[in-house]
Amino acid sequence: MEPSKEEGWEGVSSDGGWRMANAMKEGKMKRIIAPLVAILILLASHALAYDGIVKKQVFELPEFTLVSGKVLKQVRIGYETYGTLSPTRDNVILICHFFSGTSHAAGKYSPEDKAPGYWDAIIGPGKPFDTDRYFIISSDTLTNLNAKDPNVITTGPASINPDTGRPYGMTFPQVTIRDFVRLQKKLLESLGIPHLKAVAGLSMGGNQALEWAVTYPDFVDKVIPVVTASRTHPWVVITPLKVGIDAIMLDPEWNKGDYYGKEEPLDGLALAFKEITATARSQAWADKSFGRRWADPARDPYESFEHKFLVEQEIDKIAYTRAKVTDANSYIYMARVLILHDVGYGYSSFEEALKRVKAKVLMISTPLDLFYPPWQSDEVVEVIRQNRGEAWHLQIESDEGHVAGTTEIQKVGEEIKRFLNER
Amino acid sequence: MEPSKEEGWEGVSSDGGWRMANAMKEGKMKRIIAPLVAILILLASHALAYDGIVKKQVFELPEFTLVSGKVLKQVRIGYETYGTLSPTRDNVILICHFFSGTSHAAGKYSPEDKAPGYWDAIIGPGKPFDTDRYFIISSDTLTNLNAKDPNVITTGPASINPDTGRPYGMTFPQVTIRDFVRLQKKLLESLGIPHLKAVAGLSMGGNQALEWAVTYPDFVDKVIPVVTASRTHPWVVITPLKVGIDAIMLDPEWNKGDYYGKEEPLDGLALAFKEITATARSQAWADKSFGRRWADPARDPYESFEHKFLVEQEIDKIAYTRAKVTDANSYIYMARVLILHDVGYGYSSFEEALKRVKAKVLMISTPLDLFYPPWQSDEVVEVIRQNRGEAWHLQIESDEGHVAGTTEIQKVGEEIKRFLNER
Repeated sequence: MEPSKEEGWEGVSSDGGWRMANAMKEGKMKRIIAPLVAILILLASHALAYDGIVKKQVFELPEFTLVSGKVLKQVRIGYETYGTLSPTRDNVILICHFFSGTSHAAGKYSPEDKAPGYWDAIIGPGKPFDTDRYFIISSDTLTNLNAKDPNVITTGPASINPDTGRPYGMTFPQVTIRDFVRLQKKLLESLGIPHLKAVAGLSMGGNQALEWAVTYPDFVDKVIPVVTASRTHPWVVITPLKVGIDAIMLDPEWNKGDYYGKEEPLDGLALAFKEITATARSQAWADKSFGRRWADPARDPYESFEHKFLVEQEIDKIAYTRAKVTDANSYIYMARVLILHDVGYGYSSFEEALKRVKAKVLMISTPLDLFYPPWQSDEVVEVIRQNRGEAWHLQIESDEGHVAGTTEIQKVGEEIKRFLNER
Repeated sequence: MEPSKEEGWEGVSSDGGWRMANAMKEGKMKRIIAPLVAILILLASHALAYDGIVKKQVFELPEFTLVSGKVLKQVRIGYETYGTLSPTRDNVILICHFFSGTSHAAGKYSPEDKAPGYWDAIIGPGKPFDTDRYFIISSDTLTNLNAKDPNVITTGPASINPDTGRPYGMTFPQVTIRDFVRLQKKLLESLGIPHLKAVAGLSMGGNQALEWAVTYPDFVDKVIPVVTASRTHPWVVITPLKVGIDAIMLDPEWNKGDYYGKEEPLDGLALAFKEITATARSQAWADKSFGRRWADPARDPYESFEHKFLVEQEIDKIAYTRAKVTDANSYIYMARVLILHDVGYGYSSFEEALKRVKAKVLMISTPLDLFYPPWQSDEVVEVIRQNRGEAWHLQIESDEGHVAGTTEIQKVGEEIKRFLNER
């Protein structure tokens, strides 16, 4: 299952920097050159120092073979980096994004941006994912929902199939979390990165982090899977995932996935977002934010179907705002990615798959998470410890539900820092 | 708010039986007639004794004025009775049904029926709702989902509007739990029943039970609201309720509610049922029943969108089975009834409404209920006790979730019996 170390290295020496450093110690020209190199490195690292302004970069492969054996041509995914790669290339952390997320994990594209990347609270100078210390790479996945966003580079159903010149639509092959991870490995190899200090991610990003530890056990030292699990629970398969897929397919504008250049299935997609938004939030959140207040105090919902409760109106707004920038087929594919996810796929069980893990594992959950209740983190920790691995489970104290993995992640910032730097 | 005691009594004496009994004690013919009457009563009660075979009966009103002021003509609802009305008419218990339920709470229509009514485990001779002791009436509501079922008598969007000769569709007026309760009161009055020993119901039936205690505080001694609350939580407003409504309306066959005699919006309705079925069940249930097993061991879901997980296939079956016998508009109306439900409507708050309660209240909840988590039962008990009322909260130990209010109700049978007979 694990590719050989040679695979795909494409001539990049993984220990080039280290060899140079040793040569400097030994060489005759040490007295002259060493200070010069030091100055260059200092200049370079200053120039590269993370200042909170980030730029999307593109990784492209002419061909990529999926776990299923199918071959994707002209595969492109975007990525961002924060911090500076050490000369010895040994300070790399990979961040994987969640279901509806992108590689924009930290920083801003320009100072005018309204908000920074989703985990900016914990990625930056002196923060838990310390850009003064680590070189952090955040990668887009295949079939990213935000295919329409110019800052998202992905290959999925909305991409042009090079064989036909038209969007793939529902002819795009089925992909999995393991494919995402294998493609990220190719990206790292293209950058000459031989090893990861850590992989972290929340929700579907956490699925990828744990999958990394299973698929490439020698490549990664630590993983931090946040609000996630080893596999998708059958209840979650139905609600929100299958319900969301069905909603999109029910919309006549979906047209079996052939809507590109035409009216898009906005209502079906908005319905899918309503469903997933509610599941990602707790009842406590709904109570605090809306209660049973009316959307308009002058329009009593008891008087007419048109008169809404505040919670109906606000979820509508969230859902349509998201739907307008999302590709419906990509939503279907990504929901299917989650439905299929199980680190145990191809092994006799998920426990058997977890036996492969060599990385230290820090599971982070939150009590009111309907997607990935805390017991699913306990389960991972238990299995890894039974195999003499090192694993811990930490909770984000919050009544927000699943989204606390984004909105309240700073609450466990110190523990993440300690895990990365000390364990 | 509470109608006067005279309203709608239609000449039925509420104490006829009692007066006859007193006359017997006093009259000269006592020695001759008393044994005769006793024999007649014995024969009558034997003839009437509940034998588990039940018959739907119909209550009809030429006009019924809703809380909104709108008037419904030719209103009909069905009901069933179990047990025998005492001569003094003081042994009556009313059972109210849940969202997708009907008045078929116990017994069978014929010995060949596959299953009895939904609460048969606790209604019958010697059971907690003891038909040897109580006369139990179970009533249909307006806008019942099962409008197509010949054993369900209801008035709702699928009924013929007497003014047009065509089904109401979406022109049916909006109704509420309070309307259901007010109509049940008319039904009881038509039967000459002056008072209720108790009102019980699960889920939406529990909403009605509590609403009874608020709207008619002097009419009912005890209420048993099971897996329910004083009002619908804003989270539940969205999922499953609003999501279900949107799913039906998204189906092109829904046709703004005008589908009678044409193709019905089966897919949209099935989607609504998928959503509500999952919400009514716990994650533990999904795990036990399906896990991540494939629907067909020979058809790997990783290979094709057409290959399903067992949980997808089984929820599909449940959803389409239910959808085929359900009227879609009635689903929309009933979901709206729940969205609107708040005993506090028309009062300054739900607490203010609960101040009216004089009945003893036994709230019954279950730990993994996503619809009505146990804290919502605590809340009712607390408010009633603050007003010096008598209220208790009991839990059904179960990992099934909301449906435990049906499937595991017998676990609290002894407590229900004690509450009814001793408190």
